Order: sequence, then structure tokens, then C-alpha cells
Amino acid sequence: MYDDSSPADRNARGHRLITGFSNPLVKRVRSLRDKKHRRREGLFIAEGLRILTEARDAGALPEMLFYARGGLDHPLAVELEAAIADAGGELIETTPDILTKLSGKDNAQTLIGVYPDRLTPLEEIDRDTAEIWIVAQALRDPGNLGTILRTGDAVGAGGLILVDDCTDPFGVEAVRASMGAIFTQQIVQARWPDFIAWLRTGPGQLLGTSLQTDHDYQAVRYEPPTFLLVGNEAQGLPADYQAACDVLVKMPMLGKADSLNAAVATAVMAYEIVNQRRDD
Amino acid sequence: MYDDSSPADRNARGHRLITGFSNPLVKRVRSLRDKKHRRREGLFIAEGLRILTEARDAGALPEMLFYARGGLDHPLAVELEAAIADAGGELIETTPDILTKLSGKDNAQTLIGVYPDRLTPLEEIDRDTAEIWIVAQALRDPGNLGTILRTGDAVGAGGLILVDDCTDPFGVEAVRASMGAIFTQQIVQARWPDFIAWLRTGPGQLLGTSLQTDHDYQAVRYEPPTFLLVGNEAQGLPADYQAACDVLVKMPMLGKADSLNAAVATAVMAYEIVNQRRDD
Repeated sequence: MYDDSSPADRNARGHRLITGFSNPLVKRVRSLRDKKHRRREGLFIAEGLRILTEARDAGALPEMLFYARGGLDHPLAVELEAAIADAGGELIETTPDILTKLSGKDNAQTLIGVYPDRLTPLEEIDRDTAEIWIVAQALRDPGNLGTILRTGDAVGAGGLILVDDCTDPFGVEAVRASMGAIFTQQIVQARWPDFIAWLRTGPGQLLGTSLQTDHDYQAVRYEPPTFLLVGNEAQGLPADYQAACDVLVKMPMLGKADSLNAAVATAVMAYEIVNQRRDD
Repeated sequence: MYDDSSPADRNARGHRLITGFSNPLVKRVRSLRDKKHRRREGLFIAEGLRILTEARDAGALPEMLFYARGGLDHPLAVELEAAIADAGGELIETTPDILTKLSGKDNAQTLIGVYPDRLTPLEEIDRDTAEIWIVAQALRDPGNLGTILRTGDAVGAGGLILVDDCTDPFGVEAVRASMGAIFTQQIVQARWPDFIAWLRTGPGQLLGTSLQTDHDYQAVRYEPPTFLLVGNEAQGLPADYQAACDVLVKMPMLGKADSLNAAVATAVMAYEIVNQRRDD
């Protein structure tokens, strides 16, 4: 299944061919690896047929799709190409070297999509649409953020609410680690006081983890919608954030260390919530 | 608490001062960021007072300790310095720039230790010393490997057995992510046939996860010692590895995705094992 249509054929189908590193569009998309440019353009990059297909299934199509020769051979890529063309998106054939430059990764994927970012305002969240919401406070590691999105998808969470100064959810590494969940989870950025004020306008159990509590995480009943609050990797939750929680729990720590990786702790907690609902 | 002793004072206490980037020892330690050199020297790098103190508590002292001015001010650092001196280790004062060069990280920690690697031969493992052992197959991401070590410590696992071509557990990123568990968990590298042959010489339930099974992970009773087998990030467990398992289970996946991050899946499984033992 090698697509051997000529550049002229492709051009007739609305494709562009870009082979120059100094092409302004290449420079512009390359700049989306930088948070400042992402914010200004309201765009971000996602890579790979699998994630781009998940995006399409979730209703998200890229404004631009960059591919190298052979990148549109797979049947799913053919469907993606048609959907993008129907939606008026740009299809841009380029070289593997330029794809690598755009993704910043050796062995770049053969497809790179440029998407409008998809932040949801806090007040547009319908908390009753899910039994779990994850709230991250000053989360700094993009791999952790993406992994938490991925876990959120797996446990049927509604979305991820980012408070304080978290790493950018639309950064290349976070998007990669999310494995497509960047398109299926709602993503909110909010100030902590605004989040708390909003939370208290309706039902919602705010759940935090703490080293200072005696409540075992399996001894507490979680009430939907549960807002699972995850603290900064190095500091954990600040004391006043802990004080704002309806319940504080701890997981058993049987070794020398006193904490888990933030994404791991989030997942262990979230599966406990899922398991309690399954038992009901 | 600023240590303003002169280089001459420190020299009298057995310290060396190295300020040149081209110093052979700097080059040699710098080369430990490369797996080939780590293997040849049998040494690896760990950074930061917290991890180095955990190492000491676990009985591991560095052959060399690099520090910048002020790096030995903390009381725990003073204890560490004394223990290293007692054990005949080298104490090397250097510059922040050289520490950054050694660690490869901006904002390097103020302490870098060089340790002998600590692989345990498979046949020296005493499986009865722990109820959980984690087995990773072709795990490629150093962050995942380190995070799995950290989780292993938290759940009281005995150690991590690496089969097939896993990322190096003594790489800088894996050591960092382990948060000290590189020193508290036993680490084994083994060929899969050798591991299976060894496993079957004694008690041990080999537990894998699979998308193809109907067994819910909470519906199975785990028998100690449980060997929790984690597959490669992209491929999961090969079919013949699944076939070698005593039990295959799956976790609920309530969203669009069909898998969890490898370190997350390991933790969710490991805490289920811990919780079953707590219920007994």
C-alpha cells in the first residue's frame, strides 16, 4: 500500500509540499514546542497515528497535518486524511528530517497534527457527568501530568483541573504521555480560591492525601463526585490545601520511603474510588 | 552554618579540591552517564542529600563524593561525610559548574555520589524474604523503571527482576526516579528462560496482566510470594510470556484507552496484592 501519487496529484487533492527547513510554516510549528508560542497561537502538537486517531474519535481534528512519504498509507491514516480535508484542514507533505525537527524527537512519528488547544473554563464543567475529577496542584513534571490524564481516562474521570503553577498540559511531553487522553479528558486551569468557591456551589467531596493523617485510604467511603487532589511532586499538598479537604487519607507505605510518585499515587487512589463504586 | 574552612583545612581532613573541567577524574565520572562506561567501571551516580542519606541508611556509601561549597553544611551531610571518610571514600570539593556537568541537569544537586553498582545474581535471591517481587520485561523508559523501584519499596517488595532488554537501572534518570529505592530494592538481571527455571524451583505465583483475559484483578487471590510481571510499554507482555503466567488478570478500563502507563499499572496491581494481604 505505498502511495506513489506524484506531488502534482497530491497538490490537486489540496496537499502542500514543504521540504525547506527555513519555510515559515515549519518555523511557526516548530515554535509550538515553546509554551509562550503555544499560548500565543492557541495551538499544540500531537504525534502519531494512534493518538491522532483517538483525537478524531473524540471529535478533534488538526488544523494542519504534517506527514512524510508513506505516512498516509495506513487505512486509519486515509480516513484521517479525508476527515481533515472535509473539515478544511491543511495537509502538508514534508520530509522525515522536518518531522523530526517539528517533534524534537529522534525517530519522529510519521504524522504530526497541529490542534487548537482545548481548555474548558471552570464554570462550564458539569460535575455530574463523572464520578471522579482529578485536581492537580503545582504539578511540575509533564510526564506525570500526561500520565495522570491517561489514568483519568482509564478510571472514567471527567477531567483534570490544574491549580497553581502546573506544567503546561499541551507541551509535547505531556501530550505524548497522555496517549490521547489530552483529547478525551476536559482540562481546566483555575486559581485555587476560584476552584474552591466553584466546588462549594454544588456537591463534591474533596479528597487529599497526607502523611499526617491516620485514615487509611481503604477505610473511607468516597462519595461521588469525588475531587481527587494531587499535590506537587516535591512538596505534596500545602497545609491550607489539606485543611480545605473533606477527607484526608494515606496509603500504606511498607518500605523506607514516605511517598509515591505523584502519577502513581493518583492512580492507586483513583482505582480505590472505582473499586468502591464497583462494590456498590 | 556556612563551612568556611579553607581548602588547606579540608585537605588536611582528606578532601581533594578539583576545579578543572579537564581533570581526568571529572571526565571519568562524567562518562558514567553513558551505560557502556557504567558497565565497564561497575559504578553509577546518585545525586542529592536525600537520596544519598537513604543510601547510607540502606548501608551503601559512595566511593567518591563530589560537593560544592556549602554542600556539606546540612547536619545529615556532615554525618554522611564522616561515614564516607571512615570507610575510606574520597571527598572531593568542586564547583557548581562541574557538578552540573557531572549530573547533566541544570540546577544540579549540591552532592553527587559515585557508587558501585549493586546487581544481585538471581540465584542469591531469597524469595521468602518478601511477599511481592516485581519482574519487568523489556521495560524501556528509565523514568518508569525508577518509579517501579520506588513503588516496590512502598509495597514492601523484595526487588526488581529485569528480563530481556530493559533500560539500565543505574542510569541517572532511573536512579533519580527511584528516589533512593535503587539502594533498598534488590536488582537482578536475568534471561527469561533462566528466570522461569529458577522460579519453578520453589513457591511463587507468576502474575501477568492481559487485555485478553476475563479475570478481574480483584477477583483473583494472590498467593505469596507473588511475582508481578510487567510488560514492555508499547507491546505489553508477549503471548508466550503470558502463557507462562499462573494467573492473568485485567484492570477495569472505563474510558477510550485500553492500557495504563507501565509504572501506574504495576502500582495498581501491587497495591491490590498488599490490600489482600492486609485483609487476611
